[in-house]
Amino acid sequence: MMQKVMEIALKRSILIPSNELYSPVGGFYDYGPVGKALKRKIEDCWRDLFLRREGNFEIETVYILPEAVLKASGHLSCFGDPVVGCSKCGKKFRADHLLEEKGNFTCGGMKPEQLTKEMKEKKIVCPECRGPLGDVGWFNLMFKTNIGPTEGTTGYIRPETAQGIFLDFQRVFRSHGSKLPMGIAQIGKSFRNEISPRQGLVRLREFSQMELEYFFNPSSPKHPRFKEVENEKFIIYTREEQKKGSEKCIELTAKEAVERKLVPNEIMAYFMAREMQFYMKLRIPYDVLRFRHMLPEETPHYSGGNVDLEVKTSVGWVEVIGNAYRTDYDLKSHSQSSGKDLSVLLEDGSRVIPHVVEPSFGVDRTIMCMLEYCYREGGGAERRDWEWFDFPAFISPFEVAVLPLMKKDGLSERASEIANSLREKGFDVIYDETGSIGKRYARADEIGVPYCLTVDYDTLKDGTVTIRFRNDGKQSREDSKTLPEKLHSLSEGNVVCLP
Amino acid sequence: MMQKVMEIALKRSILIPSNELYSPVGGFYDYGPVGKALKRKIEDCWRDLFLRREGNFEIETVYILPEAVLKASGHLSCFGDPVVGCSKCGKKFRADHLLEEKGNFTCGGMKPEQLTKEMKEKKIVCPECRGPLGDVGWFNLMFKTNIGPTEGTTGYIRPETAQGIFLDFQRVFRSHGSKLPMGIAQIGKSFRNEISPRQGLVRLREFSQMELEYFFNPSSPKHPRFKEVENEKFIIYTREEQKKGSEKCIELTAKEAVERKLVPNEIMAYFMAREMQFYMKLRIPYDVLRFRHMLPEETPHYSGGNVDLEVKTSVGWVEVIGNAYRTDYDLKSHSQSSGKDLSVLLEDGSRVIPHVVEPSFGVDRTIMCMLEYCYREGGGAERRDWEWFDFPAFISPFEVAVLPLMKKDGLSERASEIANSLREKGFDVIYDETGSIGKRYARADEIGVPYCLTVDYDTLKDGTVTIRFRNDGKQSREDSKTLPEKLHSLSEGNVVCLP
Repeated sequence: MMQKVMEIALKRSILIPSNELYSPVGGFYDYGPVGKALKRKIEDCWRDLFLRREGNFEIETVYILPEAVLKASGHLSCFGDPVVGCSKCGKKFRADHLLEEKGNFTCGGMKPEQLTKEMKEKKIVCPECRGPLGDVGWFNLMFKTNIGPTEGTTGYIRPETAQGIFLDFQRVFRSHGSKLPMGIAQIGKSFRNEISPRQGLVRLREFSQMELEYFFNPSSPKHPRFKEVENEKFIIYTREEQKKGSEKCIELTAKEAVERKLVPNEIMAYFMAREMQFYMKLRIPYDVLRFRHMLPEETPHYSGGNVDLEVKTSVGWVEVIGNAYRTDYDLKSHSQSSGKDLSVLLEDGSRVIPHVVEPSFGVDRTIMCMLEYCYREGGGAERRDWEWFDFPAFISPFEVAVLPLMKKDGLSERASEIANSLREKGFDVIYDETGSIGKRYARADEIGVPYCLTVDYDTLKDGTVTIRFRNDGKQSREDSKTLPEKLHSLSEGNVVCLP
Repeated sequence: MMQKVMEIALKRSILIPSNELYSPVGGFYDYGPVGKALKRKIEDCWRDLFLRREGNFEIETVYILPEAVLKASGHLSCFGDPVVGCSKCGKKFRADHLLEEKGNFTCGGMKPEQLTKEMKEKKIVCPECRGPLGDVGWFNLMFKTNIGPTEGTTGYIRPETAQGIFLDFQRVFRSHGSKLPMGIAQIGKSFRNEISPRQGLVRLREFSQMELEYFFNPSSPKHPRFKEVENEKFIIYTREEQKKGSEKCIELTAKEAVERKLVPNEIMAYFMAREMQFYMKLRIPYDVLRFRHMLPEETPHYSGGNVDLEVKTSVGWVEVIGNAYRTDYDLKSHSQSSGKDLSVLLEDGSRVIPHVVEPSFGVDRTIMCMLEYCYREGGGAERRDWEWFDFPAFISPFEVAVLPLMKKDGLSERASEIANSLREKGFDVIYDETGSIGKRYARADEIGVPYCLTVDYDTLKDGTVTIRFRNDGKQSREDSKTLPEKLHSLSEGNVVCLP
């Protein structure tokens, strides 16, 4: 399944392997026109749901951070993976992955020395050339660089967008009402120099995040709108079931999850309910979404509780969101390292270092899951072999395709006029005049365009065009003058079908 | 002027100095909530004008490029600045800047040896400690890093967004109709390891670009919509006047500029006319915009002609756009270096390597100019000392501020309800209940919010609120039920004033 989806994605330039003219380096993907439009609309949808409607703020911070920042955040000492090299072919591998592939075994939290011992005991050799492996070392996953012409200033490309938010928190807090709770977010790229990047969008060296840091007074871990979602349900995969090796999950409301202490507080439960709404809006079904309570060995020492949202895909369960109760760890660390007081003054005169709940969304993985769940095959006799995407209209990369029946007799010119007039009205339009009309319908379906407009000889006579709907191939005839209203009413409430 | 604007920008977190908790590294700025919203809306406006309405495509390519890409593009050998170090204090400086500061002198195109000779002749010493300077060297401006756990793969953080477009061109061309002309764009960050970054947003080490590569058949250097703009006027600063040392400019229509060969072709003239429209939409006046024809020594050898758009600011003329006729240089270089044919097959059976005209916009500088030209002081007796921004409504970071008169008696709750209902309708709303109503009006003006809504005791009784308009302080009373329609009609056509 994933392979089929990736095939269309590459064929239609939804995704493009980065730098493919040269020898490929793993872990990098570009977004072509269709992929970029999809990504932009998903990000806009998130911005709308998690920021604009909630009164949370968005900021944009820099990619290159000086070493002091990442020393304080803990990334310099802790952000790494165990690596082992082959003494024969020189290739390097993730030591924990080699061990885990060997059998039912998890390396969570194991130190390099333990891993070396385990590898020797299990007689693991190089998976490429069967040569002997050396001792396990530690590889920091940050890309290192140097700032300025002097040798002194070491910098790293950011491993997450969150640190920029902690650094700017106090200024944003003071210039925006000095009130808690306050949510500050960032959408942007982060970078991890993975030892062995995986195929596709699951483990990239360059990836996009949507991170929200929700700052609150620890004496009042409440969300002002919790009431709105308290009865929303979701599925939780508890620590108990994980330890048992069982896949059994339980279904709870947001309120029950808080009462049963499966999530640390109302704030995290609030976001979990909103996350469900967001993914279901993107056509990922309820029953393939589960919240996994992270095991103690997967959770940082300072955490007040971490819960991942996972999506069941054809390549297994994939984490798409990490929800982390980061407590006051980051602000405290930066305060200690920089010598600057990062506590805030509240209305009652008290000072507090705010606590933070962070939902961190992976954009690329979200797109991957969405492609898989919107993928369709066939649909009616005339398109038995067609492959297409059932994107919801509000997120479709292009809302309408304008197709002249022929390139001659002024049909192209008339079709271009119609395309441009729809663009003036705010529609995302794709214009296509190459190949037979059937091929063009197929191409439009393949990139999930909900409506095709065909401009033919009758259009020149009476101004009508054919509208064809992606999902069932049904057609109707409409006046080209009232197209904007017609298209709006068809897409409204996301009901994309012809009457 | 610029200093005043920067003071508000920092005070209101429009801009935030990056990493300021730690020892500052020059050339990095973050965007706070107001700055980010402004930036996002400017980018959306550009996307609308230059991509959506034109049928051009947007893509997103990676930041980290392997060395081979930048060797082919010429950045590895040519993308640098002359640097000189002090033998006493060890500080490093731009050699050409030190020379140019000494007097009426330009170093354009000078090699390090020539610069060393000039500096010795002019007896230039270290500007910091008066110590002796060494020989001039060459410093490559790209940030270098290493990809993966092996030592072999050198990478650089991209110095421009354009290269990703050239690398992906062929795939995009094939999957989107195989037709010329075709425009492919990218909005994103680029990185230059400046030797001496300037204050503010003029010379950053990390900056945002909006770049459009317009691919066309060199035998037909035409733009299909040139007719629409051929009579649009703009101001050109010719090479002749620059050589004379004069500041005199001429005014021409787009058509005249092509006929008089001041621009290489219709395509570039088309973009120049659209660029004028774009900047004027952002409130940068016509008469502070000029196109400077780049001098031969400022133009790469392969260029078919480069024209910069410059804005007159309080700190001098600032380049905001580089328009470059890049010919087939980039596709040819990548073709030669990679050994892959990057020519395209046209309908008549011929093959051609497309030529490219590139308008490259600097986002940060655009924001800087916009802040300066939207900055206002005073306005009516009651706000003699106020400083505010006259942002056009469509680009204002927040469209409306909702302010309860008091925090008590249920006014906060009612105001929050109104704020949330406007958010549901798509408005960007800021909610503020801290301080006197006068101070809150001032704060809203200061970040360019066009409308303030005050919720008072009458609101509780009859549902009306006070609307106050930023530019003249005038107020009127409106029914809170019809606010969305009222606000839309006020902002429509960008006429932001009360009746």
